Amino acid sequence: MGDTRYDVVGIGNAIVDIIGRCDDAFLSKHDLAKGFMRLIDARQADSLYGIMGPAIERSGGSAANTIAGVSSFGGNGGFIGRVADDQFGKVFAHDIRAIGVSYDTAPARNGAPTALCLIFVTPDGERTMNTFLGASTELGTGEVDAKMIEAASVLYLEGYLFDKPEAKQAFHTATAIAARAGRKTALTLSDAFCVDRHRDDFRKLVRDGVDVLFANETEITALYEVNTFEKAAAAVRGECEIAVLTRSEEGSVIVTANETITVKAEPVDQVVDVTGAGDLYAAGFLFGLTRSLDLAACGRLGSLAAAEAISHIGARPEKPLDQLARDAGLIT
Amino acid sequence: MGDTRYDVVGIGNAIVDIIGRCDDAFLSKHDLAKGFMRLIDARQADSLYGIMGPAIERSGGSAANTIAGVSSFGGNGGFIGRVADDQFGKVFAHDIRAIGVSYDTAPARNGAPTALCLIFVTPDGERTMNTFLGASTELGTGEVDAKMIEAASVLYLEGYLFDKPEAKQAFHTATAIAARAGRKTALTLSDAFCVDRHRDDFRKLVRDGVDVLFANETEITALYEVNTFEKAAAAVRGECEIAVLTRSEEGSVIVTANETITVKAEPVDQVVDVTGAGDLYAAGFLFGLTRSLDLAACGRLGSLAAAEAISHIGARPEKPLDQLARDAGLIT
Repeated sequence: MGDTRYDVVGIGNAIVDIIGRCDDAFLSKHDLAKGFMRLIDARQADSLYGIMGPAIERSGGSAANTIAGVSSFGGNGGFIGRVADDQFGKVFAHDIRAIGVSYDTAPARNGAPTALCLIFVTPDGERTMNTFLGASTELGTGEVDAKMIEAASVLYLEGYLFDKPEAKQAFHTATAIAARAGRKTALTLSDAFCVDRHRDDFRKLVRDGVDVLFANETEITALYEVNTFEKAAAAVRGECEIAVLTRSEEGSVIVTANETITVKAEPVDQVVDVTGAGDLYAAGFLFGLTRSLDLAACGRLGSLAAAEAISHIGARPEKPLDQLARDAGLIT
Repeated sequence: MGDTRYDVVGIGNAIVDIIGRCDDAFLSKHDLAKGFMRLIDARQADSLYGIMGPAIERSGGSAANTIAGVSSFGGNGGFIGRVADDQFGKVFAHDIRAIGVSYDTAPARNGAPTALCLIFVTPDGERTMNTFLGASTELGTGEVDAKMIEAASVLYLEGYLFDKPEAKQAFHTATAIAARAGRKTALTLSDAFCVDRHRDDFRKLVRDGVDVLFANETEITALYEVNTFEKAAAAVRGECEIAVLTRSEEGSVIVTANETITVKAEPVDQVVDVTGAGDLYAAGFLFGLTRSLDLAACGRLGSLAAAEAISHIGARPEKPLDQLARDAGLIT
């Protein structure tokens, strides 16, 4: 095992979020499945943006949010993901570098514009996402920076990458590099519909190539096609070293071959926007792992970061997470 | 006087704000004059963005914020201002239309990108602005929509337009159209440095072509080169029909030929970001005028809208202003 310059290196879709508010009737009227992510093409993106209310723009992307969170905790993060050479591309690159993450993927000079996600936030704080993948799908094996991955304690991948063949190939290339270098690989299942689209691939990957799996309740039950959380937790046990199952306000459950650890959710005054809750939970958990904290403490760091994320609009941390963790006595 | 389809039509720079946080030491280190606006070129914008922390993007522009506010109160608003045919241009056009404003200025297909303003917000909520005018300066007489202006009760102009010769010419063309149609013209002085750059022009304009003038304390003292608010208020009396002088937490003073009306500021729990306070005050005041409310009630609507603007990041209203005005008993 060589030098680990990075705590966590993530590979994912490089996305700028466009966040607006709507009510539940709007979601029904436009056939948007509340709380889920769907892929849209450029034409659908234009049409959906046309009916959206006034919005704000903020950098996003699932794995990118996680790596931003790791950096905010004081960890060394790296990110691999493709933007175009346009205004949203500059925004994405700026924000991830400004929080301290190493990011060197060259912007695509031709082809589709930078990816965007139209996010509709309902009054209950739930988010419904519509993603135009644009330039992010031009991520290919050529962009997989082997030196960066070899130098990271943990490689972190988002399941959303499986939605495009080139990105899926980049994903497999990256996991092979990490395995050869003796590093850990972590995966988030991303979305229940995404799991439905790629169930067999995900099951195989969890068994053969993943050390740490993140999934929420709907994702893990979709993966094992069971109807209760308990059955899903039983099904995943032993499939990978650590399965981290998040349950929104009910907290999270960490499952290993011979342990089951329950972690409470961190209370929040008001849930403003749940976008990024899972991403930031993963940030806290992985940061704790790289600091060799016990699994319960890793889970508490995850809960802390998720609580910060849901207390404001947007998926990136607004308060320095290292300070919150120190105030909570979880790190020194 | 023909039909007035619009309550207020604004002409201004069409800008997307990039908003980040910093401390006072950062402003000092980079020679940024706290609370003011400065113009920067493309190279300076790149360089300043490079040292900015993680940010969010949100539609802005002084007159555009005001017209968005008028629309949020339930008024009919129109806006004239130039963007480029790029991602920020689409964001600007989307947001102003989504709040109900008529906006038909064709995007510039060549030349500079859409204008942006790098806004640094300090912990006290004060904002320091750095504007790259980009495509907004390509606004010329050709874009001045005479039919729209003739159909508006009030033409509203931002002083910032004076910073570029073409936009200044468009400004004069617009005021001539409004005068011929028997409409009122309102002007905001925008910024004390802007006043310094164009003092003689502004004084002449206030006397000859402006019915309603908006200025804050530093702007009105800069205009008349006096050292107290009282002297400035005395100097402006009778120069135009109504001078509306805003004083942050001390409220506002409305000066006419034979009246001086003092209006309290609306209390807020926490000043998060003062960006847009003056713009939204003008929105409330002008909306009240078009509904023939008395001047004190116009001022209270202004205070209400300003208070909403400073209680969150960004200059556009987040809560429907008509609802706030009804709750406050100012409109029915």
